[in-house]
Amino acid sequence: MGTMDLMDHVSEFARRDWETYDGAGTVRFALIGAGWFTREWALPGIERADHTEATVVVDLDPERAGALADEHDLTHLSPEQFHDGVAESEYDAVYVCTPNATHLEYVETAAAFGKDVLCEKPMEASVDRAAELVEATREAGVSLMVGYRMHLDPVVRRSKEFIEAGAIGDVVQVHSNMSQRMVAELEGDASEQWRLDPDLAGGGAMMDIGIYPLNTTRFLLDADPEKVSAETGSTHEAFADVEERVAVRATFEGGVPVVFTANHNAYHDSFLRVTGTEGQVIIDPAFFEREPRDMEVRLDGERHAIDVTDVHQLEEEFAYFADCVLSGREPEPDGEHAMLDMQAIEAIYESAETGETVRVET
Amino acid sequence: MGTMDLMDHVSEFARRDWETYDGAGTVRFALIGAGWFTREWALPGIERADHTEATVVVDLDPERAGALADEHDLTHLSPEQFHDGVAESEYDAVYVCTPNATHLEYVETAAAFGKDVLCEKPMEASVDRAAELVEATREAGVSLMVGYRMHLDPVVRRSKEFIEAGAIGDVVQVHSNMSQRMVAELEGDASEQWRLDPDLAGGGAMMDIGIYPLNTTRFLLDADPEKVSAETGSTHEAFADVEERVAVRATFEGGVPVVFTANHNAYHDSFLRVTGTEGQVIIDPAFFEREPRDMEVRLDGERHAIDVTDVHQLEEEFAYFADCVLSGREPEPDGEHAMLDMQAIEAIYESAETGETVRVET
Repeated sequence: MGTMDLMDHVSEFARRDWETYDGAGTVRFALIGAGWFTREWALPGIERADHTEATVVVDLDPERAGALADEHDLTHLSPEQFHDGVAESEYDAVYVCTPNATHLEYVETAAAFGKDVLCEKPMEASVDRAAELVEATREAGVSLMVGYRMHLDPVVRRSKEFIEAGAIGDVVQVHSNMSQRMVAELEGDASEQWRLDPDLAGGGAMMDIGIYPLNTTRFLLDADPEKVSAETGSTHEAFADVEERVAVRATFEGGVPVVFTANHNAYHDSFLRVTGTEGQVIIDPAFFEREPRDMEVRLDGERHAIDVTDVHQLEEEFAYFADCVLSGREPEPDGEHAMLDMQAIEAIYESAETGETVRVET
Repeated sequence: MGTMDLMDHVSEFARRDWETYDGAGTVRFALIGAGWFTREWALPGIERADHTEATVVVDLDPERAGALADEHDLTHLSPEQFHDGVAESEYDAVYVCTPNATHLEYVETAAAFGKDVLCEKPMEASVDRAAELVEATREAGVSLMVGYRMHLDPVVRRSKEFIEAGAIGDVVQVHSNMSQRMVAELEGDASEQWRLDPDLAGGGAMMDIGIYPLNTTRFLLDADPEKVSAETGSTHEAFADVEERVAVRATFEGGVPVVFTANHNAYHDSFLRVTGTEGQVIIDPAFFEREPRDMEVRLDGERHAIDVTDVHQLEEEFAYFADCVLSGREPEPDGEHAMLDMQAIEAIYESAETGETVRVET
């Protein structure tokens, strides 16, 4: 692929290659969890997208859920009311954005009511609970999508197209990182402290942000990790019970080495650097919803800055989910895809514990 | 450190902070090995630098050594003549740039004649032979410097100053890579085929180019690897006997994760990305002598492209070596420093073999 082809490839950068629905339907969402991500990203995404509407909000904290309900004209339910089926006719699907270890209980209830599910990543706090979650949606015959917003970002979709078209030859290695100064951010929002509680979070930097390098690489390469070697650690007292940082050396299908790091107490940074035999795709910044992504393709010794059209990632995600539901097809990334991240994370923690390279059990 | 301080810091970017000698002396070199790196880089470096001169050339191949001798007015010796002390009065030091596993024999002879030594990296093909090499120079009381040209590059020296001044806070992780399409390059020069021979090279991508991420990180952080986990592999038939690629997850002193890759059959690339709690230093390209280095510092969400003054790395290296020798101080990186790379590489190969995290034995 020459430079001209490359540039052709990025025309209509933000095109929605997944869009099929042209009816007048709407998917009405119950928001489960009214924390900052729901307020700042998911709800605005739903409001921006066609064919989606938020109608219900559920949260343990009546004050913040009530305030959000007032402001956006939503029905406000306590968790008990939700589980009892109150206002069940007011929503078609649930968006679950609660502490990781509480996803299961909400998804079980939603599935029992026949509601489709869009559940945040990581899917749950452990492999076993994630498997129960998938099983609950499968038994009920409802759709399950896991909220890997990078899959719907045109930066990633166009990169995947480049790579699949052979633009950089055979992929031979990947480097990636996601890091932030979480301590400072946590101080501003006590309700986010659950991320430091292993019972609620299931882990630290790996579960929360390390999953971006891991999952985005899986999607881009259409390949999964087979073996991992990892180390975890903490320096700040806030991270006494979950890891502050993780470093992973993974081997993906085909023997491709993928090295990545995640750190909750480091300079704010995210990048993904895919190297092939014939070129590179670099996304930097890559993973934060709140800053524009940037992309560069390197071929024949030349660096091509690609003119990225930034989208609202949650608008894309909800629009895609609704497009699938309304046109009667299953959304991706689904529960099976997300299970492999849970299994890889379990292997990563085992490796960090034992010092050995651990095979990802699927 | 604010942006203004940062910019102050890079004024006189290429200053030789190591320069002390102001006499009229000259260090005369015997070039041991007349391969492409000697011809294209070392000899031009010697000719560019003040206080250095090439006077002798030694090579197994009489034709290429003879041609070089004619062209540059050097005394041409066979290896046997060199070992017999022919023209021994014509040189003060040796520059050893032969296949890795032959460094020892030349250094032993040079040391026996009381000549100072500048030996290419890796120091030898194994830990044991490297230790013998160091011992030979120690017993003879001659200087030994190992040719890590990155130590003398202002990009690296200024980066080290930034980092040591606390500009990016505490260093928390490093990513790095060096890769090239060696197969294509080898086809052009049969005399470089020794790099594919484990007896002469001691290893593949790790020994030859993986040593750049490893050693430059050690120098920048003033810290050494304590544990390593690695994988090696090959896809091209040329790399049946030595590894085509390596991926390493190392833990440096203080628990800092360093992940790096090297690949002899990948897109030409080299970078080093040091992340601290408060910022980043990125060098990209980083490691190839034949292309300009580039540098960026990231602080407070801003990216600062640093105006790099590119130098001839080998001119800097030889000028530094001569400055040390003529002013009577020991040059660095010395044999002890280089031993640790050999020990780390041995641990990397052991880890690749066993799948276990291996402690670097020093």
